[in-house]
Amino acid sequence: MADTVLFEFLHTEMVAELWAHDPGPGGQKMSLSVLEGMGFRVGQALGERLPREMLAFREELDVLKFLCKDLWVAVFQKQMDSLRTNHQGTYVLQDNSFPLLLPMASGLQYLEEAPKFLAFTCGLLRGALCTLGIESVVTASVAALPVCKFQVVIPKS
Amino acid sequence: MADTVLFEFLHTEMVAELWAHDPGPGGQKMSLSVLEGMGFRVGQALGERLPREMLAFREELDVLKFLCKDLWVAVFQKQMDSLRTNHQGTYVLQDNSFPLLLPMASGLQYLEEAPKFLAFTCGLLRGALCTLGIESVVTASVAALPVCKFQVVIPKS
Repeated sequence: MADTVLFEFLHTEMVAELWAHDPGPGGQKMSLSVLEGMGFRVGQALGERLPREMLAFREELDVLKFLCKDLWVAVFQKQMDSLRTNHQGTYVLQDNSFPLLLPMASGLQYLEEAPKFLAFTCGLLRGALCTLGIESVVTASVAALPVCKFQVVIPKS
Repeated sequence: MADTVLFEFLHTEMVAELWAHDPGPGGQKMSLSVLEGMGFRVGQALGERLPREMLAFREELDVLKFLCKDLWVAVFQKQMDSLRTNHQGTYVLQDNSFPLLLPMASGLQYLEEAPKFLAFTCGLLRGALCTLGIESVVTASVAALPVCKFQVVIPKS
């Protein structure tokens, strides 16, 4: 019935609740960090439930492809639309119709509201990567709703 | 892959986050009320996505049976284990293995922790009933983990 939308409803409520008591710019930054942290732990937990053979990825690029395909389908019932890399540890994952931004009108009007709908998912990606043994920095940007780019930077050790 | 557990992971994080800054008994009561409110709005939203013919229930008991079967399966991938009523507006819905309590050890040890894992679901039931045109009061009780009883009281108008 409605199980596929349950996550989206709950995410919306979570964002609304964190912003309900928003005490200005400092509070906003903390709320973003709280959302990112929740996403991280959910991503870690999801990562831990992957089949064992998934955890034996050898190539970084394979792990990123796996996130774009299997993880995205599990969470959003669709695949990421494109994946690009500079082959130096930076990956850009683009979703042309990101589900958590869809409830917002398209265009530029609500663009400044976008970051709070992206923080959880940045954390989710970072958490799943962490469980797969990759430390990363994940940020998101929106040029025009509902297109969204996630940038994953993996520092070379 | 992992989509069925996504809701449970997110719920766990939400509870943890609300309790992380817990300022004593007054704060706990407010956190419970926040969770119940989030559940209510998610329940309402789920209710609005039901097929139209579902909204044409005539009998109160049919609505309750629907919650125990379809709504529970949509959210928890299982049916409620039993439904009892005094035929005067009070219904007791029992889940012998409530998924949101399963991560806790069974027995009496963590019984006092249980209420925070039930508030969201009480709201969920109240919200779905509200969308179906029924005002109610929903409470939950746990005698031994992970058995849980939800009591729905529908005031006679």
